[in-house]
Amino acid sequence: MFLKDLRTQVLEANLELVRRGLVLYTFGNASGIDREQNLIVIKPSGVDYDELKPEHMVVTDIHGTVVEGNLKPSSDLDTHTLLYREFPSIGAVVHTHSEFATSFAQAGMYIPALGTTHADYFYGPVPVTPPLTDAAIGGRYVHETGLAIVNYFRQHKIDPLAVPACLVNGHAPFCWGKDAQDAAHNAVVLEAVAKMAYNTLTLKPNSEGVSQALLDRHYFRKHGPSATYGQGQ
Amino acid sequence: MFLKDLRTQVLEANLELVRRGLVLYTFGNASGIDREQNLIVIKPSGVDYDELKPEHMVVTDIHGTVVEGNLKPSSDLDTHTLLYREFPSIGAVVHTHSEFATSFAQAGMYIPALGTTHADYFYGPVPVTPPLTDAAIGGRYVHETGLAIVNYFRQHKIDPLAVPACLVNGHAPFCWGKDAQDAAHNAVVLEAVAKMAYNTLTLKPNSEGVSQALLDRHYFRKHGPSATYGQGQ
Amino acid sequence: MFLKDLRTQVLEANLELVRRGLVLYTFGNASGIDREQNLIVIKPSGVDYDELKPEHMVVTDIHGTVVEGNLKPSSDLDTHTLLYREFPSIGAVVHTHSEFATSFAQAGMYIPALGTTHADYFYGPVPVTPPLTDAAIGGRYVHETGLAIVNYFRQHKIDPLAVPACLVNGHAPFCWGKDAQDAAHNAVVLEAVAKMAYNTLTLKPNSEGVSQALLDRHYFRKHGPSATYGQGQ
Amino acid sequence: MFLKDLRTQVLEANLELVRRGLVLYTFGNASGIDREQNLIVIKPSGVDYDELKPEHMVVTDIHGTVVEGNLKPSSDLDTHTLLYREFPSIGAVVHTHSEFATSFAQAGMYIPALGTTHADYFYGPVPVTPPLTDAAIGGRYVHETGLAIVNYFRQHKIDPLAVPACLVNGHAPFCWGKDAQDAAHNAVVLEAVAKMAYNTLTLKPNSEGVSQALLDRHYFRKHGPSATYGQGQ
Repeated sequence: MFLKDLRTQVLEANLELVRRGLVLYTFGNASGIDREQNLIVIKPSGVDYDELKPEHMVVTDIHGTVVEGNLKPSSDLDTHTLLYREFPSIGAVVHTHSEFATSFAQAGMYIPALGTTHADYFYGPVPVTPPLTDAAIGGRYVHETGLAIVNYFRQHKIDPLAVPACLVNGHAPFCWGKDAQDAAHNAVVLEAVAKMAYNTLTLKPNSEGVSQALLDRHYFRKHGPSATYGQGQ
Repeated sequence: MFLKDLRTQVLEANLELVRRGLVLYTFGNASGIDREQNLIVIKPSGVDYDELKPEHMVVTDIHGTVVEGNLKPSSDLDTHTLLYREFPSIGAVVHTHSEFATSFAQAGMYIPALGTTHADYFYGPVPVTPPLTDAAIGGRYVHETGLAIVNYFRQHKIDPLAVPACLVNGHAPFCWGKDAQDAAHNAVVLEAVAKMAYNTLTLKPNSEGVSQALLDRHYFRKHGPSATYGQGQ
Repeated sequence: MFLKDLRTQVLEANLELVRRGLVLYTFGNASGIDREQNLIVIKPSGVDYDELKPEHMVVTDIHGTVVEGNLKPSSDLDTHTLLYREFPSIGAVVHTHSEFATSFAQAGMYIPALGTTHADYFYGPVPVTPPLTDAAIGGRYVHETGLAIVNYFRQHKIDPLAVPACLVNGHAPFCWGKDAQDAAHNAVVLEAVAKMAYNTLTLKPNSEGVSQALLDRHYFRKHGPSATYGQGQ
Repeated sequence: MFLKDLRTQVLEANLELVRRGLVLYTFGNASGIDREQNLIVIKPSGVDYDELKPEHMVVTDIHGTVVEGNLKPSSDLDTHTLLYREFPSIGAVVHTHSEFATSFAQAGMYIPALGTTHADYFYGPVPVTPPLTDAAIGGRYVHETGLAIVNYFRQHKIDPLAVPACLVNGHAPFCWGKDAQDAAHNAVVLEAVAKMAYNTLTLKPNSEGVSQALLDRHYFRKHGPSATYGQGQ
């Protein structure tokens, strides 16, 4: 893939977040990676979305050193680069403060798989990280944020493409996907799923997740070699 | 009715769901039946709504065998066909994951008839099916989903045109009607009724349904031979 | 005032309800009265809002007998006419099934005066009627709906212009005002006030109303001879 | 700064409140101050937003005496002028009845710092004033409203630019900032933060605020000499 195409895709993913009401002002960022060249394209920090053009996207190496662009990259860059280094299967990362997903993060609660909408996209609960220690917050904070996500997925042996999102405790969600469009799509669905989980839990506080059988059926209807959804193959 | 008109009506019903905010991306589908020819027209699977044209609609027989169209039909086809076979009075089926109706389905709760808005459209609670067994989920799942609806209505002797909607446990609502426009209209009203039921129950958890007298008065004001609402006879 | 102007005002009030998201499909109606001629102008029943023109408005006498127009008047006409007969100070009536006001009506709960937004428009709680008896529902139901409102205001000595709205138990709100624009405005503010009351009560269930002093201060800032709000006088 | 520019900025701040859905009809007002000339520019009372032009803005001295303009200033003027006199670091004031911030004010609850979205803008909880006494309400009410805010900040030694908002008990929020755009921006973010705090507290009633370390990290990432967010410096 040409870097020019990646710039366009990353911009488009950022704009999709705005169109779907997931970001207020500049509260969000999307990036994508070119795995062949090991280059990351990310939104610049604090620039208005309606002024963003492909050439404003910042290009960095996998460690976050800027290699192209005059603007400063998103202040969450170090979380993005860590996720790319540690989750080799992902092609894009999206961070938003979308209302309901953020509300679960603020409550320190994971989002249980309460229905098939969830199961179509997330093969199990969307986890929440433990709170960061004061030392981690006072140290390499943005890096530590990514580390909390990666450690959680490793310890619980979760495949990042099977559960392409994580809530950071007291903060907000990070999502990812195979490419920028997919990551933005997952962020939009996460917010819808979070909203319905909120409704379900406030209506019936002890609601339980769907059965493993239903989780399997819906997830594998949309993913993997036996997927039957859509016009694909 | 010509099949061409049915294609247009089914497309229009699908678009009405989008306009009213009931579907996110491709999460929904509407179909209609020509009872004379026993042919069903249904939305294709996973195609963007803004690209949909009448000629993209898929035509199947009453058992779901495609007889016209190059696209794959909605993955929920087997639920639609079963409802058409078992509910001979209905002319169209609509499935959405609309937020509040889905939240009740996720909570495994029926929607009680808490007010006249509900009573104008649904002559009694909107039921929720029992959870499917693992065997049903692992077997002909989409067919079993329809069977759970049909069995519930049979066992409780509910006329499907008097209560033109059902929540599938842990999943989402299915609605129907005498034609595609009517089914989509019922899906839109169901969501409004579900939202107000959510508000009512979170405000006053032990809220009871309206009296049978009020249910009768409102339902028969809009339906049946003594209807007085609207300009029609 | 010419009847032609009243038709235009009543149409405009109906459209304001749509613009502000208070009505779904045809769930709502507004009317106005010409007190000199004792003629009422009301929306026809079940006609799409985007087709409504001033000439579609139906004109009736104070007892609801149609004197002009080929369309059937709103099915809630008898509530409107009763309110005009019993509340001589009002010039217009609006009925909606707006989401949050209707949710309070469904819960059988009045809307307490929890803040100054409420106090600016409603001089005390917005009451809810007692449930209608089966006999009233089975009898002149629409008339009885109006009677429940009027009886409540009489028994509690509430001035209908000081509290220009009432929730009908298990049904929805009726609002009114000095003219059609004012009644529609009150319906829009009622919904905003109901939404904030819902939030307040779900956040802190035992929330109490504002003090009489604050109610007086805000209400009389906008109403009566010492009003200081706006550019008037 | 020329007064003409301030008029334009204040108008633009008022319009931003409308665009972001923070005001219904005329429920809101923004003002700005020229600290060199000690002149305040404020929205007129009760004028429709879509008719507002820069020349409609009212100019007063720091005590609220109108020095330019034919329209009456906002009825909340005395709160604005007091805040300008007592908080010399602020350049603009915004008052809205935005839904969720007002709901907290009605519940008499402060908004705890539950997440990083809050911490990015408000260095600690957004406080709520104690209820006004009947004497204060019956006296110089609008002035007393400002006094309740100022007294709270003084007693608790809160820097008004570090926490640029306060909820007035039983009423609604007042926000401020270094200029009109900043104050409006703070009002928009306050509403988003209030909405997420509402969700968090209804999901998990005993939710606690973020740690002091996280509050420090996020607040000082966006404010002060070591800010790293945006393209600034």
